[in-house]
Amino acid sequence: MHSEFDIIRQYFTRPVTKATLGVGDDAALITASIEKELVIAVDTLVSGHHFFADADPRKLGYKALAVNLSDMAAMGANPCWATLSLTVPKKLIQTNKAWLDEFSAGFFELANIYQIELIGGDTTRGPLNICVQIIGEVEKGKAMLRSGAKPDDDIWVSGYLGDAALALAHINENIILDSDELMHCESALNTPIARVELGRQLINLAHSAIDISDGLIADLGHIVECSNVAATINLNEIACSSILKKYLPQPIAVRCLLAGGDDYELCFTASEGKHKEIEELSLKSAIPLTRIGKIKPGKGLTIFNTDSTAITLETKGYDHFGT
Amino acid sequence: MHSEFDIIRQYFTRPVTKATLGVGDDAALITASIEKELVIAVDTLVSGHHFFADADPRKLGYKALAVNLSDMAAMGANPCWATLSLTVPKKLIQTNKAWLDEFSAGFFELANIYQIELIGGDTTRGPLNICVQIIGEVEKGKAMLRSGAKPDDDIWVSGYLGDAALALAHINENIILDSDELMHCESALNTPIARVELGRQLINLAHSAIDISDGLIADLGHIVECSNVAATINLNEIACSSILKKYLPQPIAVRCLLAGGDDYELCFTASEGKHKEIEELSLKSAIPLTRIGKIKPGKGLTIFNTDSTAITLETKGYDHFGT
Repeated sequence: MHSEFDIIRQYFTRPVTKATLGVGDDAALITASIEKELVIAVDTLVSGHHFFADADPRKLGYKALAVNLSDMAAMGANPCWATLSLTVPKKLIQTNKAWLDEFSAGFFELANIYQIELIGGDTTRGPLNICVQIIGEVEKGKAMLRSGAKPDDDIWVSGYLGDAALALAHINENIILDSDELMHCESALNTPIARVELGRQLINLAHSAIDISDGLIADLGHIVECSNVAATINLNEIACSSILKKYLPQPIAVRCLLAGGDDYELCFTASEGKHKEIEELSLKSAIPLTRIGKIKPGKGLTIFNTDSTAITLETKGYDHFGT
Repeated sequence: MHSEFDIIRQYFTRPVTKATLGVGDDAALITASIEKELVIAVDTLVSGHHFFADADPRKLGYKALAVNLSDMAAMGANPCWATLSLTVPKKLIQTNKAWLDEFSAGFFELANIYQIELIGGDTTRGPLNICVQIIGEVEKGKAMLRSGAKPDDDIWVSGYLGDAALALAHINENIILDSDELMHCESALNTPIARVELGRQLINLAHSAIDISDGLIADLGHIVECSNVAATINLNEIACSSILKKYLPQPIAVRCLLAGGDDYELCFTASEGKHKEIEELSLKSAIPLTRIGKIKPGKGLTIFNTDSTAITLETKGYDHFGT
């Protein structure tokens, strides 16, 4: 059986260059650039709640970092350093000898793409719980906030929404996907692509941004609330995959599109005058960027159906303590 | 039932002044001082492992931050900002309505003493798991590392060791303390005092430092290993409370003293020439600082008993994955 220190040494200690001191002391040391602000986010994945107990450890390691990268993307930040607090059942790593190998491989696979350095952490025995904190940098005063939306802004989303939730709906037997559809949707659920480069490019274009982790309505709702504005969006303008489109207008598919969590796309607002630049960015980056509505003065979020009637949803989005 | 967002708003959102942006967006924003390095640590407390499931939530909130402050102390850093990732069973906060009130009160009670700002976090349902990450500042190049010990350094510890472990030994029925003794030892276990001010004052005196979280032998062992030196310590020179002294030389008391975790005192090394300054610091700060041994060339850690025989311990210290 590995000791805690062996685990850290073997699986989670890598050389650092950007940090002054990485894993292996009481704390890590970093030096920030003078012209930058540091951007700090933390996100935790809990077994039986964010993922199934038998989830593929490589995908878990990847996703635990990806969901944090998505927060960096939403701020327009460049991710630099991460810490990992891993609580793992002793039995799991005793029965699955490759678990730590796979988990750390998934984590570093994504970390290496962005040259993110793991500079610290904690490894403890207990019910599986993966807490990643990320530290990024952004040019001073340039971070995209939830509070920056202005009346007359266009509302945009990146990519296609709802596929991750569609995979979950299949797993929960609320819909039946064929095997190709399931493979595509499970990939959206398990190995989401954080829009880090897009976020970096939006800092001079967008007024506000958020990542869609709890569902479009909940997350756009945060922008509306923090910016003290209203928003209207049109259901038929929300970009979705051909798979999800196939199941529209079934209520389950509408719910996936509007309130499905785990998409990790960006929702952002920008003045109408920027729409050509944003469309060019979409072409250049090969990321679909779609205008789905408008910011207005007032309060609240209204969603129009294809027949111009307003939609009422049973659930606004994912809430960890909701019923 | 509170929603996740209500919980964050009600219990964990406080105004910030040192940070540019605190709780409530995708990430927080901070600006580091030019002449400082940032010091990053993370520590997690897991129910049933670091504490009992029915632990007093106020003390838990306090301790979750205290163990991280102790890492700052060991580096000589000034703690500034924290994030909190709290995984809590829905049932716990349904049956104990005051749990979140008490937990957050304990956390902020300690945070306020050091003017630490909570700038972010995550609240999730699941088995109780409390992950705190702390960000501090230290003058560039001044952080105390585990790797700085030099031959002929004196080895020092702050405070008294073993009382926290003695409380655990009582709880586990390996020793029976009277109620006054138990009260004192439980206070050491549940509301440890991180040596932050001491750490700040040691940065110009000590060559190396570590906080004693896993037990003296394990933690001094890290200094020895990282500094590539040997160390000898004398059992009868290790400062302990009158309570622990009463149970010496019972093996359980010796184990508490040498290998008991959760003390959160500092172990540090300094050149012999600094011993007067360190004794003055002890007087001025009213913190016992005791020389317990010497750093030597070579490898390994030797503990001498009162009769000058070397001690062999069954366990080196706390290991989360040990048997």
